Amino acid sequence: MKITKDLYQGSLALLTDFYQLTMAYAYWKSGKAEQEAVFNLFFRKHPFQSGFTIAAGLEYVVDFCNNFYFKDDDLSYLGQMKNADGSPVFESTFLAYLKSLNFTCDIDAVEEGTVVFPHTPLISVKGPLIQCQLLETALLNIINFQTLIATKSARVVLAAKGDSVLEFGLRRAQGIDGALAASRASYIGGCAATSNVMAGKLFGIPVSGTHAHSWIMSFDSELEAFKAYADAFPEKCVFLVDTYDTVAGIKNAIEVGKILREKGKEMLGVRIDSGDLAYFSNIAREMLDEAGFQDAQVVASNDLDEHIITSLKIQEASVSVWGVGTKLVTAYDQPALGAVYKLAAIKNQNGVWEPKVKVSQQSIKTNIPGKHQVSRFLKNGRAVADMIFLKEYMEGKTSTTIIDPIDPTKRKRINFEDFEEINLLKPIFRKGTQVYDCLKIDAIKQNAQDNLMYFDKTHKRLTNPHVYPVGLEESLYQLRTALVFKMKNYDK
Amino acid sequence: MKITKDLYQGSLALLTDFYQLTMAYAYWKSGKAEQEAVFNLFFRKHPFQSGFTIAAGLEYVVDFCNNFYFKDDDLSYLGQMKNADGSPVFESTFLAYLKSLNFTCDIDAVEEGTVVFPHTPLISVKGPLIQCQLLETALLNIINFQTLIATKSARVVLAAKGDSVLEFGLRRAQGIDGALAASRASYIGGCAATSNVMAGKLFGIPVSGTHAHSWIMSFDSELEAFKAYADAFPEKCVFLVDTYDTVAGIKNAIEVGKILREKGKEMLGVRIDSGDLAYFSNIAREMLDEAGFQDAQVVASNDLDEHIITSLKIQEASVSVWGVGTKLVTAYDQPALGAVYKLAAIKNQNGVWEPKVKVSQQSIKTNIPGKHQVSRFLKNGRAVADMIFLKEYMEGKTSTTIIDPIDPTKRKRINFEDFEEINLLKPIFRKGTQVYDCLKIDAIKQNAQDNLMYFDKTHKRLTNPHVYPVGLEESLYQLRTALVFKMKNYDK
Repeated sequence: MKITKDLYQGSLALLTDFYQLTMAYAYWKSGKAEQEAVFNLFFRKHPFQSGFTIAAGLEYVVDFCNNFYFKDDDLSYLGQMKNADGSPVFESTFLAYLKSLNFTCDIDAVEEGTVVFPHTPLISVKGPLIQCQLLETALLNIINFQTLIATKSARVVLAAKGDSVLEFGLRRAQGIDGALAASRASYIGGCAATSNVMAGKLFGIPVSGTHAHSWIMSFDSELEAFKAYADAFPEKCVFLVDTYDTVAGIKNAIEVGKILREKGKEMLGVRIDSGDLAYFSNIAREMLDEAGFQDAQVVASNDLDEHIITSLKIQEASVSVWGVGTKLVTAYDQPALGAVYKLAAIKNQNGVWEPKVKVSQQSIKTNIPGKHQVSRFLKNGRAVADMIFLKEYMEGKTSTTIIDPIDPTKRKRINFEDFEEINLLKPIFRKGTQVYDCLKIDAIKQNAQDNLMYFDKTHKRLTNPHVYPVGLEESLYQLRTALVFKMKNYDK
Repeated sequence: MKITKDLYQGSLALLTDFYQLTMAYAYWKSGKAEQEAVFNLFFRKHPFQSGFTIAAGLEYVVDFCNNFYFKDDDLSYLGQMKNADGSPVFESTFLAYLKSLNFTCDIDAVEEGTVVFPHTPLISVKGPLIQCQLLETALLNIINFQTLIATKSARVVLAAKGDSVLEFGLRRAQGIDGALAASRASYIGGCAATSNVMAGKLFGIPVSGTHAHSWIMSFDSELEAFKAYADAFPEKCVFLVDTYDTVAGIKNAIEVGKILREKGKEMLGVRIDSGDLAYFSNIAREMLDEAGFQDAQVVASNDLDEHIITSLKIQEASVSVWGVGTKLVTAYDQPALGAVYKLAAIKNQNGVWEPKVKVSQQSIKTNIPGKHQVSRFLKNGRAVADMIFLKEYMEGKTSTTIIDPIDPTKRKRINFEDFEEINLLKPIFRKGTQVYDCLKIDAIKQNAQDNLMYFDKTHKRLTNPHVYPVGLEESLYQLRTALVFKMKNYDK
């Protein structure tokens, strides 16, 4: 999959906030364009009050970076921008510089499908300040949305407790790529298929669907409509039974199911898209069983999410396949993940790396300085804690303490020899060259499932989950505290 | 703007639910593919508990229809789909039929920027059943999202009471087009500019932006950073003052403002992106005024929406420009509009048009049959009611009664000679040929402003708005009731 080639017309370099270009110009004017910097992309809170988040979107990012260049018409567009006094906003020599710009950054990232937590970098970019800045907005757009939806999908799939979940969201999704990227991320999170044919083609994921109410209404009777569908698709009959009267619809489905059976074919099931799903799914199950269609499935749809599925399960609804649309692909109860991309270190004029913090009025907005690695510690196949650290501070250490970045009284002692240790950040680009083979979509989906297995079920509870410990390695914690005190001019 | 040409790689025909293709195949198998039908696209409830909705997305729809064809690789993709028994899902003669398919529909639609209400068609499609069906999902995807965001934007702009609103949402938007289409729709709804450079280029809308916290952090001090920015962009200085300490930041901005003034340039303002915006905006205003910068603006951002802006206005915050991001471009409090696309009439084998209704368990899901027109009645430049009707029932009538589609006890008598009457649905395509010149983006924005002026301010109130009357013309109401009774086998 190459979104820039298969879907879009080449480079998406202009998919950025204008202030990235004004800063780029000002960096260039100040002679700072090539100064080396490190930026980390991370979020501060799980979405949906979840206990976990599933990283997604890296393949889009890789493709974006591999095709990062300014097209001639991009530069013409920038060239015609004028200040209030009629002078051009950007000097032509700057536009020539942009034209010659090659992507040369190092990028580390967690693999797609990895379970991640607040404060840990999903992506770390090291390179010339101007490039780091020009990548920011697109990386955030891609990672924020796909990570949000992969997480929502994983939650819906957990609620379905082994039943298939089908993603049906295209018609209510937020724009064209809002649908396509959501279908991809939903599959990563565990959905079995999408209704979106273009997503099927672009990403190689299964597509599914049978017929709508309009099919029924275009015939003189529902029975006639079911019969005609069975003639066209004897292998794929899931009859939508609620166009006029759900119980009568189930009777008609059974009648056509019997005709199919005479021809050696089996009806796959019925779908209910309105009314009380607990009530009608049980009626459908009883009627199907009584008529000898024990294997026919009851598919339910209509504004489902993880909470409604859980409620229907508690009520013992007889649903075996869940069609989930709007509330999945728009992440209805929290439609944005607030990941940010913050300057964490810069190389000064003497070639020395300086860690950087932003000290906000709001403590949670204070970032973690430096170029991080993240370790996940496992014991007997179970994750016990994640540690954010700076490699240069770890030499010779056999144990350390990790400290919660928000509440420093929450700490955990780690003896390294007690645990299996996994480094989450992998090299993706080195000096602008891709050094990582993106996982295939089914491997990403598997990675998400495998990753979730590391975590106790209390972390995966859909409401009020048990908080998984993630901390700053103590020397990184001390560095951050010292920098904050320095910025605030406190005596220590 | 041609999204299919300037952004995407040609036809988006596969941007559809798989069931549209299985139904298309089954229509074709049943000999019904070319049977004429009418489908209406409408929504059932305003988003955000709003009293109005702004229609948007038609230009995308026009472009989608003008480029509606199946590419060879689309057909190869469909051709390789297999049933469980290994047989192909679609016969090759059907794929050849799809290849030869030309768009030949009639389409009527309300113009972009029009104020619209529940139950009235935003788009009406008349044409061969198979084409009507294959357009459904993309039309819903486009219209649902852009209408949602144009409406949200209009609400935010109403809250700002004449202040400029800038759309900053790209980094948190739902995917690439989730951002681009949102920038377009936000501009239609009244925003002054977007941060999204690609949206600026594609749609010809103004872009804006200055610098981020990272600009400040890349220098040894904030003052140095402001000075360097002022050197690069003396015309465009809006200084972000909250990287370390907001009050100190305002002092530094004033110091650089004075340097600019010595060079004959004026600082445009300061931006505050965190902390208590009511508190800090008033401090900023006082400090700027005292230093002689009465014209410098205070720009505020940070999770704003119409309700927070209203609250800040009530608190007399000194904000004159509002940067609105996440909550606007994702329509955070209701991230999907539930517009649907329903079969409303079909031409039977004798060439007679039959109106159609779907009778659901949920009364609100019962559609309005037939090929509609919608009239808006104005008196002294003020809209008093909208009427949904069938042209064929209106001949010779000089007055009628309109009846609420949900509550039939709500009625309004209309004498046509008392009002100016505007038909909202315009011809867009006839037999597949475009007969409408899409409005330019600035004309759409103006149309939205002009349309809003027709409505009393109580309909535009952001909470608990006064409900504007929209009704079915009485003969259409009677037709619908008779059809529902017939479908439910009630004696009349």
